[in-house]
Amino acid sequence: MMHIEVIGTIGEAKAEDMKQKTVIVIDVLRATSTMITVLSRGCSGIIPVETLQEANEWHQDGDLLIGERFCQKIPGFDYGNSPLEFLQADLEGKRVIMTTTNGTRGIQKASNGEHVLAGSLLNGKACAHLAAGFGRDIVIICSGTQDDFSLEDGLCAGQIADELMTLCGETNVTLNDFGIAMRNSFLQVKDDIEHALFHCWNGNRLNDLGFGPDIRYCAQMNITEIVPIMDSTMMVIHRRQPNPTF
Amino acid sequence: MMHIEVIGTIGEAKAEDMKQKTVIVIDVLRATSTMITVLSRGCSGIIPVETLQEANEWHQDGDLLIGERFCQKIPGFDYGNSPLEFLQADLEGKRVIMTTTNGTRGIQKASNGEHVLAGSLLNGKACAHLAAGFGRDIVIICSGTQDDFSLEDGLCAGQIADELMTLCGETNVTLNDFGIAMRNSFLQVKDDIEHALFHCWNGNRLNDLGFGPDIRYCAQMNITEIVPIMDSTMMVIHRRQPNPTF
Repeated sequence: MMHIEVIGTIGEAKAEDMKQKTVIVIDVLRATSTMITVLSRGCSGIIPVETLQEANEWHQDGDLLIGERFCQKIPGFDYGNSPLEFLQADLEGKRVIMTTTNGTRGIQKASNGEHVLAGSLLNGKACAHLAAGFGRDIVIICSGTQDDFSLEDGLCAGQIADELMTLCGETNVTLNDFGIAMRNSFLQVKDDIEHALFHCWNGNRLNDLGFGPDIRYCAQMNITEIVPIMDSTMMVIHRRQPNPTF
Repeated sequence: MMHIEVIGTIGEAKAEDMKQKTVIVIDVLRATSTMITVLSRGCSGIIPVETLQEANEWHQDGDLLIGERFCQKIPGFDYGNSPLEFLQADLEGKRVIMTTTNGTRGIQKASNGEHVLAGSLLNGKACAHLAAGFGRDIVIICSGTQDDFSLEDGLCAGQIADELMTLCGETNVTLNDFGIAMRNSFLQVKDDIEHALFHCWNGNRLNDLGFGPDIRYCAQMNITEIVPIMDSTMMVIHRRQPNPTF
């Protein structure tokens, strides 16, 4: 019996509860959506760090610095946290150092996990397939915003939980109460996720700042097979196998 | 513009955030469902307390002691926390002292509120009408279980939030992200709430202990107009006014 535990904010996630589990970190608006997009452009990997100081310590010649504070690009950095900035970028072979307010903190918190994946609406199905294939219990962490729950992360957690239930069979999986609520919530609005993203707290804020196109991009479900996975210190690309075993 | 803030567990609720607001405390399985039922039997009021010691300190001749620990009646108490125990009870004029693991703790946490109400599926609509009539911002506290979120409380929060949006008009109310998720979740399963209650963590546990009839009883939506409201130290009966102003 596989257990899936959905956690509403990074603050509630306990590092010791991740051991021997597959952990999926979600920050739909926008860190994990951006990670997926950055990896699709050929970079060698992404080092997620919490602070500007850490970012500078990791940085070597040729690396790219990307990230945001208060939704805006950090002065001196090569890119911000808008996935659309990267759609045409040539990042072939580059190493990327990334820091954002919530998403990269979530990845750090997950680092005790046996496998650490980055999920978003863009890769929800691929993420569920990969996690199911590992055959371990699964923890899904909604990054949220400064210790508050964010609707868009909950919707994505519900999307992935729903995929997992379908993949593994309802009777072979247990889901915590919070996960059941997130799955219900996802199923209720899945036919208009874009509307939901424009009408949550982060969506409102980003739209006011002129990032409406980012919201529309991040609201697309299952447009890629790319799943970022932690390999020692870097998030690297993992593509879904044609015949996953689970 | 009225703001509705839904909070997932008692632990997350901050007493100072309740000031000047209407606070609705929810513990569907079973404390607030039981309060409503107890008040319907003619008792003069219910004093919710956290500890057994407090219960004994309040207790005077003629009072009834009710409550549970680990879902079971407390030794020496007159009744447990099963609402069905009270359906035929004659409590006319009696004062009731009540202690439960989560629900009464939620009421204590809410005591800074301008108005403190007890909500459950049984009185969700009446509770929303009364709260809307007070015209203040609203905090809805899901009691949860030992600081974990409980699905049944989230569903009831969604029910009440949905009633409030309908009553006041979507454009006159703001709802926090967690509240939007709870409303979505409620709308997804509202046609079979009983099924949802039997398949959440508390429902499973209570059913295993032989309390299935309690779950069926607590799953009934809007069967009463009774709303328990805090009057100094006691929860007393409040019946919905025929023409609430809001």
